[in-house]
Amino acid sequence: MKKLINRVEDVVKEELEGVVAAHSDLVRVHFAPNYVVRADAPVSGKTAIISGGGSGHEPMHGGFVGMGMLDGACPGEVFTSPTPDQMVEAMDAVDTGAGCLLIVKNYEGDVMNFEMAAEMAQEAGGRQVATVLTDDDVAVPRSTWSTGRRGVAGTLVVEKIVGAAAKQSLGLAELTALGRQVNVRTRSMGVALTSCTVPAAGKPTFELGVDEMELGVGIHGEPGRKRARLATADAIAETLLGAIVADLAPTAGAECLLLVNGLGGTPLMELYLMVNAAQRILAGRGLQVTRYLTGSFVTSLDMAGCSLTVSLFDERTRALWDAPVKTAALCW
Amino acid sequence: MKKLINRVEDVVKEELEGVVAAHSDLVRVHFAPNYVVRADAPVSGKTAIISGGGSGHEPMHGGFVGMGMLDGACPGEVFTSPTPDQMVEAMDAVDTGAGCLLIVKNYEGDVMNFEMAAEMAQEAGGRQVATVLTDDDVAVPRSTWSTGRRGVAGTLVVEKIVGAAAKQSLGLAELTALGRQVNVRTRSMGVALTSCTVPAAGKPTFELGVDEMELGVGIHGEPGRKRARLATADAIAETLLGAIVADLAPTAGAECLLLVNGLGGTPLMELYLMVNAAQRILAGRGLQVTRYLTGSFVTSLDMAGCSLTVSLFDERTRALWDAPVKTAALCW
Repeated sequence: MKKLINRVEDVVKEELEGVVAAHSDLVRVHFAPNYVVRADAPVSGKTAIISGGGSGHEPMHGGFVGMGMLDGACPGEVFTSPTPDQMVEAMDAVDTGAGCLLIVKNYEGDVMNFEMAAEMAQEAGGRQVATVLTDDDVAVPRSTWSTGRRGVAGTLVVEKIVGAAAKQSLGLAELTALGRQVNVRTRSMGVALTSCTVPAAGKPTFELGVDEMELGVGIHGEPGRKRARLATADAIAETLLGAIVADLAPTAGAECLLLVNGLGGTPLMELYLMVNAAQRILAGRGLQVTRYLTGSFVTSLDMAGCSLTVSLFDERTRALWDAPVKTAALCW
Repeated sequence: MKKLINRVEDVVKEELEGVVAAHSDLVRVHFAPNYVVRADAPVSGKTAIISGGGSGHEPMHGGFVGMGMLDGACPGEVFTSPTPDQMVEAMDAVDTGAGCLLIVKNYEGDVMNFEMAAEMAQEAGGRQVATVLTDDDVAVPRSTWSTGRRGVAGTLVVEKIVGAAAKQSLGLAELTALGRQVNVRTRSMGVALTSCTVPAAGKPTFELGVDEMELGVGIHGEPGRKRARLATADAIAETLLGAIVADLAPTAGAECLLLVNGLGGTPLMELYLMVNAAQRILAGRGLQVTRYLTGSFVTSLDMAGCSLTVSLFDERTRALWDAPVKTAALCW
């Protein structure tokens, strides 16, 4: 295992210490239990948006905390759900009474722990809490980690749009409805060229031959749809977008966002090359890409590969996407 | 070779097509010869800042084109200098008579071609042209690619600060002096955990054992100071910063920027962990880190590893660093 780390048991703690140093203007980090909140939290009168999940997917979610996106994020250990106490404390740190919206990727551990935290916050704390589950991954109908589809890179689209709407003073019920609507209009699928290596395991999560790729891989290295021979960027984009568009069934000429997301070990050069392949294919299928996001945002440790996400936009969601955001990972 | 590409001869062209699609609000791209300019170029009355170099280091330099940083960037083929005709045409596209400052990393091919372009633009075009050479890499006094030290990640610090000063209407002579001053106050050193693989070569540039690292590696995979056994993040940071600080010889309590830069195949989690290690070590050596930048900005294709850069700041350079910037890769 080749990683820039010290002891494997300290990876998340030391990473968060780095975040504290690098981004003290944007966020505060609480340790034991671990959570990240906006530097100016709590923002009075604003519905609080909170997310979280296992570490190893950086910059998701801590890198999305800040003006116009998340109020708080709860990082678990690597590929391990955060615990309810982290979530309850994060809610306490960001909610001033307008309620908390939890954005949760559909994995069994995350769903269970966020549900428990929501109950605790409602019953003991008297908080208003609602949840949006993301399940944008079309690769498999269920997986080793989830009942139903997995939540992957589309989660950041939900977080950005809901975060912008929360800044415009929308209430908890409206934000919940909006988040669910964005999730329903968003689909993703990924491909791995290499496995990731979990620090505590010390060896690759799965084996992949020198000329093989895993189509539809999950962000923890879960099996996808198909092991296949390595193909060209164009052929890979065709396969991923074929599955996405078939599932999304957009109307002709529909407007969308294209997110080309690196999985952690893939350089930007290859991601831009995938942007080119993907936009040509989407245009050929009658979709109108009006917004792009390119970079490594929802990663799987050091995995080489990428995911493609298509999110159908309308005037309202496009305007919310375009609204200013200032976080460590997204800024415009 | 596992890469998201089509034909190796089309990598740069197809990547730039992706940039066109993704960033039409920020930049325009010209093909054959290839160069990237600000969407609003030329900016009347402003001294134009131009950089360039081989592709494979993305987002450098095209990702730094935009408000508050570069006016133009010339990407060569992978790890190959751009040609004088690219540079001359880029100068024609951005200079409105206030002159062009060329920021050039110290590699023989880049230096020669930018010199030739400067002569052509001065003699045939009647342009005012000046050059700042960057040579921030302390690893080796000369290398297979350079006479003297190599220019690496510190180049982006020069580009950001000079770009901000150009926006404040400084003239060519002042910008040249400022760029040289920032370069002199900036030092870097990197480490590779894996080799990169050049698409046209199809195999790793160098061999590295499973428990080995290359200390002081160059951004084209050039040999560094020492092949060593893989060490902890703390020990690596100590080695890199030891070399940097010894060479920089800062006064006690000096203020600096710390740039932790990923080389293309290294996930953000590890970079934040390095931020933590580096800031502790710099504090122990009496340096005051007041600004941080963390991410993969000056890469070496898919190489795993990172570089650390320390740039001494004063009130003026800190303010120029903090000045607004809006490019694909840097935004605040």
